[in-house]
Amino acid sequence: MIDRYSTKEMRDLWSDDSRFKTWFEVELAVCESMEQLAMVPDGVSKRIRESSSPRAQRILEIEQITRHDVIAFLTDIEEQSGDDSRWLHLGLTSSDVLDTSFALLLVKASQMILDDLETLSQSCLKKAEEYRNIPIMGRTHGIHAEPTSLGVIFALFYSELERNRERLERAAEGIRTGKIAGAVGTYANIDPDVERIALGKLGLNIETVATQVVQRDRHAEFFNVLAQIAASCEKISLTFRHWQRTEVSEVFEPFGKGQKGSSAMPHKRNPILAENISGLARTVRGYAATALENVALWHERDISHSSVERIIAPDATSLTQFMLKRLNFVVSGCSVNHEAIERNLALTKGLVFSEAVLIKLVMRGVLRQKAYEAVQSCAMMASSGNGDFIKLMSRHPLISEKLSPEEIKMACDIKHHIRHTGMIIDRALEKKRK
Amino acid sequence: MIDRYSTKEMRDLWSDDSRFKTWFEVELAVCESMEQLAMVPDGVSKRIRESSSPRAQRILEIEQITRHDVIAFLTDIEEQSGDDSRWLHLGLTSSDVLDTSFALLLVKASQMILDDLETLSQSCLKKAEEYRNIPIMGRTHGIHAEPTSLGVIFALFYSELERNRERLERAAEGIRTGKIAGAVGTYANIDPDVERIALGKLGLNIETVATQVVQRDRHAEFFNVLAQIAASCEKISLTFRHWQRTEVSEVFEPFGKGQKGSSAMPHKRNPILAENISGLARTVRGYAATALENVALWHERDISHSSVERIIAPDATSLTQFMLKRLNFVVSGCSVNHEAIERNLALTKGLVFSEAVLIKLVMRGVLRQKAYEAVQSCAMMASSGNGDFIKLMSRHPLISEKLSPEEIKMACDIKHHIRHTGMIIDRALEKKRK
Amino acid sequence: MIDRYSTKEMRDLWSDDSRFKTWFEVELAVCESMEQLAMVPDGVSKRIRESSSPRAQRILEIEQITRHDVIAFLTDIEEQSGDDSRWLHLGLTSSDVLDTSFALLLVKASQMILDDLETLSQSCLKKAEEYRNIPIMGRTHGIHAEPTSLGVIFALFYSELERNRERLERAAEGIRTGKIAGAVGTYANIDPDVERIALGKLGLNIETVATQVVQRDRHAEFFNVLAQIAASCEKISLTFRHWQRTEVSEVFEPFGKGQKGSSAMPHKRNPILAENISGLARTVRGYAATALENVALWHERDISHSSVERIIAPDATSLTQFMLKRLNFVVSGCSVNHEAIERNLALTKGLVFSEAVLIKLVMRGVLRQKAYEAVQSCAMMASSGNGDFIKLMSRHPLISEKLSPEEIKMACDIKHHIRHTGMIIDRALEKKRK
Amino acid sequence: MIDRYSTKEMRDLWSDDSRFKTWFEVELAVCESMEQLAMVPDGVSKRIRESSSPRAQRILEIEQITRHDVIAFLTDIEEQSGDDSRWLHLGLTSSDVLDTSFALLLVKASQMILDDLETLSQSCLKKAEEYRNIPIMGRTHGIHAEPTSLGVIFALFYSELERNRERLERAAEGIRTGKIAGAVGTYANIDPDVERIALGKLGLNIETVATQVVQRDRHAEFFNVLAQIAASCEKISLTFRHWQRTEVSEVFEPFGKGQKGSSAMPHKRNPILAENISGLARTVRGYAATALENVALWHERDISHSSVERIIAPDATSLTQFMLKRLNFVVSGCSVNHEAIERNLALTKGLVFSEAVLIKLVMRGVLRQKAYEAVQSCAMMASSGNGDFIKLMSRHPLISEKLSPEEIKMACDIKHHIRHTGMIIDRALEKKRK
Repeated sequence: MIDRYSTKEMRDLWSDDSRFKTWFEVELAVCESMEQLAMVPDGVSKRIRESSSPRAQRILEIEQITRHDVIAFLTDIEEQSGDDSRWLHLGLTSSDVLDTSFALLLVKASQMILDDLETLSQSCLKKAEEYRNIPIMGRTHGIHAEPTSLGVIFALFYSELERNRERLERAAEGIRTGKIAGAVGTYANIDPDVERIALGKLGLNIETVATQVVQRDRHAEFFNVLAQIAASCEKISLTFRHWQRTEVSEVFEPFGKGQKGSSAMPHKRNPILAENISGLARTVRGYAATALENVALWHERDISHSSVERIIAPDATSLTQFMLKRLNFVVSGCSVNHEAIERNLALTKGLVFSEAVLIKLVMRGVLRQKAYEAVQSCAMMASSGNGDFIKLMSRHPLISEKLSPEEIKMACDIKHHIRHTGMIIDRALEKKRK
Repeated sequence: MIDRYSTKEMRDLWSDDSRFKTWFEVELAVCESMEQLAMVPDGVSKRIRESSSPRAQRILEIEQITRHDVIAFLTDIEEQSGDDSRWLHLGLTSSDVLDTSFALLLVKASQMILDDLETLSQSCLKKAEEYRNIPIMGRTHGIHAEPTSLGVIFALFYSELERNRERLERAAEGIRTGKIAGAVGTYANIDPDVERIALGKLGLNIETVATQVVQRDRHAEFFNVLAQIAASCEKISLTFRHWQRTEVSEVFEPFGKGQKGSSAMPHKRNPILAENISGLARTVRGYAATALENVALWHERDISHSSVERIIAPDATSLTQFMLKRLNFVVSGCSVNHEAIERNLALTKGLVFSEAVLIKLVMRGVLRQKAYEAVQSCAMMASSGNGDFIKLMSRHPLISEKLSPEEIKMACDIKHHIRHTGMIIDRALEKKRK
Repeated sequence: MIDRYSTKEMRDLWSDDSRFKTWFEVELAVCESMEQLAMVPDGVSKRIRESSSPRAQRILEIEQITRHDVIAFLTDIEEQSGDDSRWLHLGLTSSDVLDTSFALLLVKASQMILDDLETLSQSCLKKAEEYRNIPIMGRTHGIHAEPTSLGVIFALFYSELERNRERLERAAEGIRTGKIAGAVGTYANIDPDVERIALGKLGLNIETVATQVVQRDRHAEFFNVLAQIAASCEKISLTFRHWQRTEVSEVFEPFGKGQKGSSAMPHKRNPILAENISGLARTVRGYAATALENVALWHERDISHSSVERIIAPDATSLTQFMLKRLNFVVSGCSVNHEAIERNLALTKGLVFSEAVLIKLVMRGVLRQKAYEAVQSCAMMASSGNGDFIKLMSRHPLISEKLSPEEIKMACDIKHHIRHTGMIIDRALEKKRK
Repeated sequence: MIDRYSTKEMRDLWSDDSRFKTWFEVELAVCESMEQLAMVPDGVSKRIRESSSPRAQRILEIEQITRHDVIAFLTDIEEQSGDDSRWLHLGLTSSDVLDTSFALLLVKASQMILDDLETLSQSCLKKAEEYRNIPIMGRTHGIHAEPTSLGVIFALFYSELERNRERLERAAEGIRTGKIAGAVGTYANIDPDVERIALGKLGLNIETVATQVVQRDRHAEFFNVLAQIAASCEKISLTFRHWQRTEVSEVFEPFGKGQKGSSAMPHKRNPILAENISGLARTVRGYAATALENVALWHERDISHSSVERIIAPDATSLTQFMLKRLNFVVSGCSVNHEAIERNLALTKGLVFSEAVLIKLVMRGVLRQKAYEAVQSCAMMASSGNGDFIKLMSRHPLISEKLSPEEIKMACDIKHHIRHTGMIIDRALEKKRK
């Protein structure tokens, strides 16, 4: 987790301080539950909560000696709460605390990511509305195809982000799972009721069947979903990078006042934010592959997943959040060059409407091959500079026999072409409303 | 897709024949919808359906010339249905047919995988019931920890497979999505009603916002879920490989009569099925990474995803199905060596119960450190061959002061240790019932 | 390995026929070596070679019964060569034959790939020479930067391909490694001299330390190198896709006569070959990740790598070869639109030369910031259509004080800008000559 | 790069301080070269070197304003060296400094990794010598196969590490490549001689054909090699994890005095170091996939690779180094349980020698099938506790006819079995000596 690509809130979440505090909450929840079940004297957990608070610095010092983080943590609490501390961690295995805490931290990280996903989603929705009726050239294979509307493109982003939101909500529900079930998950030395009450207090579900740990297919799903979000961010950023190419110049990511594209070349305005997101997406996708290898642990657990998670949990969540925030800055602050959009729409001189005329002819009974040849001959003449495409068609014997100049014009009308885009945008938005 | 690792039904699904037939179904569904909307003369689609059927051989021949598969397909139908064929493909772009067909094929593949997932899941459930009360050593880090029950281990597999079933059902719902919306998804030359009716006939959802294609985040999720299933299969197969080690010898995959472990070494009985599954899991996981790179296409689509999908769609679905079938053979036919299980349970001479006694002492008010030392001293003596662990504890001053011989014995009783495993198994099964 | 993306020679290489023939060669090489060492009667191997030849059909039939491929193979040979066959496979373990054969097959596959790499490399070299002095706009971030030469871009491809050639030669040398050392690689039942002589005959190196198998780090390197080749192919194909964008239109992949870009839109000319290569590159890169997981086998081997290799060895080698061939078709047959290249060079009206003037001013003692402002003011005027950039600079007080009109013109001269590109191309080619 | 899994020297290398110092060295090397070529006044670089030194804190402050790191850096130097600073960065583009510096940093990181690789390699070699003649059971599929020697296993590790050393040396040579060639690599505003002299001073090669940047196939190879090293570390750590299983107990990773395997279970001694390495290996392998996606940049460069490298360069190098150090601690400090090794060797009561007798019989003219049946019948009797395997064979009619008791005994002698292991170890070591 590097400062450059993370928010303070996410760094705080994964700090030692925050981790130890979460452990403390888990230990207390268990202790309280045992009090409730009369397994621990009344008042113990309240006294511990009031007297103690994990001290990261001290814990790390003790760990230097004990080489065991949970024991170091318990010693620190013992130093503060004295004799009461013997009622902590009773019948627990370290993983009961660590995995339950990990769930709490991941759930919080998910919430931050969900918030930023929602913000970005809203920005796309707003742009979809704003550019609802702005025609823009649609491209397939990088080649001009038929016009679409700029609003549709943002609605496309919106609907994909919404799918990712659903995926993340489900994956977050999957990792909202704790476990207070002992060394191999059998409750050999702890009552299942303790787990039930404690996890209830913490807002977590019970792992259906645990080993020493919560099962890692849940986490693999979570990291996979982050990779999917990253891939969708990449898709949006890629579109911005294409739009901003010198020859295209249609839509630009925000460019700060005083920002310099190049120390030497004053004419440069580079899509560096979008490019940055493309790179980060690759990185986040890499973590997903790693997380999948954590699923197959040995028997009731081996600890190989632990080093992986110490690295990828902070890194993948912070990068994903950062990407979403940065992308939201790009989307919400983008500037549209309407002139360039119109220039590009006109670039092929109407050829992009050839299909519309072709289909009209076929509908009027012309054989497809004949229609194709007729339209193509006009297209070729127009594109080599010998006349206007629409006029040429209006004068072509076969075409003019079947279609009136009015009909030809309509087929070549951008407005006609994008007559359904409003419906598409509405349909995308509707899902939300439900 | 290689024969060795695929079923006939899956090979048939992805055959040229099957693909062309699916295209035909899509074209006919569109034609019928247009008839319904009075855009096409009555009876056309019925006549085409009766007169024609795609001929794979012929289509491939034509493609040699046209170098365009959909055109070759249409030509073949035209050769059979004559003039009526001009009403096919009207206003469609090739991707309307290809992507809608791809959805139909993937949905069918999902169904096969779901069936095999269910079968495997049921086998695990059965084993969970069968071995409900069979104690077996639980291992963490590969080291003996505390006993669990063999039934719990199968319940663990069962509950993870059930999570995968839910994932796959959702992912399959995501790709159950077609698109009949033209070159850039704007319905420029086709009525949205045609799509609505046609996809309804085919049992598919409408892509909320399409470009030329159905969006690839849906497919990425699908391939990610296959990778998750593969990872879970790997986890189960890994357990079998560990169980079957010569020194462990607890549970064995089925070994055919007359099967030879080695051409030279008659004593060998190798877990080759489980190993095979481990390898295939790696392969399937590799496809997920590739699928994620298909999400970010250029503008309204580039065709780079197509070559990827031609390879990984058949390969990933067939390997996943094959793994599930093979793993079901392993699970349902496994043989349990109860003698070895008991031998291994006794291997550490009761040391695995040390925690139980320790906790009982703490509950009786002994300081943890003192209790630990007392139990450890008995454990060390027992493990160096100087006496029986339980008897030593019964004679130890501190321990015997706090615990009666009966209580010590109970703490070291395997039955006591696994008293909750039945509840765990029931809890896992309950989810299903709901 | 699918027909669409593979060559006949590669399919033949990985066919059952070819694999069994290679096994036969290995068995015979061992038998001949034992004859040479007087461990086997004279004439045996010659008689077997003359009487027998592996019959794929028959072997597969036998395997149905024995369920062991090597035994089935040996039975087939026995049926043909009779009693002599007892001298085959003496002291060998199946992996001696399989791994040594695998080495032979991979070496042949490497050679095919090396040939196609060389062909592509030569095509790039030829284009580098041909377009040596053709200026073209250089782009960073997709934004116009400074001119380069089209020849330099092909020289760039050439030099990267050459690096890949070296990588592949080394990796191929690494897998040119066989092993005839018995069940756990200790020569327990076979003389090391047999291995030495047999592998010598087959042109293979001896595995330094084998287990039951040749070590898989060698294969991981090989598949990694294929992934690198794929990534470089992707890089070249990406450039073509960018070049061919409607707004750029500088260089086009070949477009067959009669080829149709779109069944509906006659104006479309899509870079489908380049896009196809981009997709295949993703697929090949996926295999590399999988191959790395084959390195860590259990003890003296587990067989999990085998299923992986049955799939990825044919698939990765055939796709890599296919990509190289297709890319060579693209490079060697590409067409250059000189008009578009010149139009794009002029698009920013000289602004791309701003840095050259700026530096000249700094060299003449002007403070960087002052120089920057002077050049920028002229650039801004020119780009808003108020005058010619060079003329404006010639009239600017500060600039004209330090630089003569001649010097300004020279700084803005494309020829001057690309004066070193010939040297760069020569330098790239020189490496080859050495 | 997290403290827990990195060394101080590696953290220092990638610190802001170290990066800025490296930039300074590159700028000075260029300035000195220009002095040498009389393009810059004599004495300038000496004066700058004496007056200035990059101040990380100050640079980060300035970057807050300029939002461009190289400009911030230059401003800091300017603040210290005054007017002389105008001779810095002349004709350079930021990437000239950044990529050349990146090469210097990566080369240093490689050197650290190479040193630790060498140390680990030497430890394996030492263990290979030490355990040269210690027989240990060889396992294939996790099942007992034939004996090998413990020394051979360490020689196996040694020879694989040596191959990795060669790979890393080559990859490090590949990234030992700088570039001082301007905005698009054409030397438009800088003399190629400056690059030649400056990179010579810095000990770097010249990029054959550069764009704005050094080509990323070089870095992909480097990260791939780190992934290979990680995979080999995983392989070694996996062997330790298997060895340390309770049922196997043959070789143990070091266990610190006072270290606790479990807070509750005093009998636990877990292979946590080896497991940790297994996890880290997964993580490092994940970075390789990401690095391969950096190869295909747009045209003369896009900046998407930059964010990736800011993360994975420190992370992949530090984790790889850490793994090597930790693994060296495991290998060099491991303890061997000779008793367990012997117990396991005897576990199958001689059945592992069955092949040796079988082959001897075949060599004496017995048909393989007959010999197999004879040996198997003795093996089955022995394994069901009805007699000693060797004695049973000595009494078997067919076996005793062909082999003397002495010969049978010799075939079943472990020493005989591992008679070639010394040669294998010597052969592995020999490579080093050359």
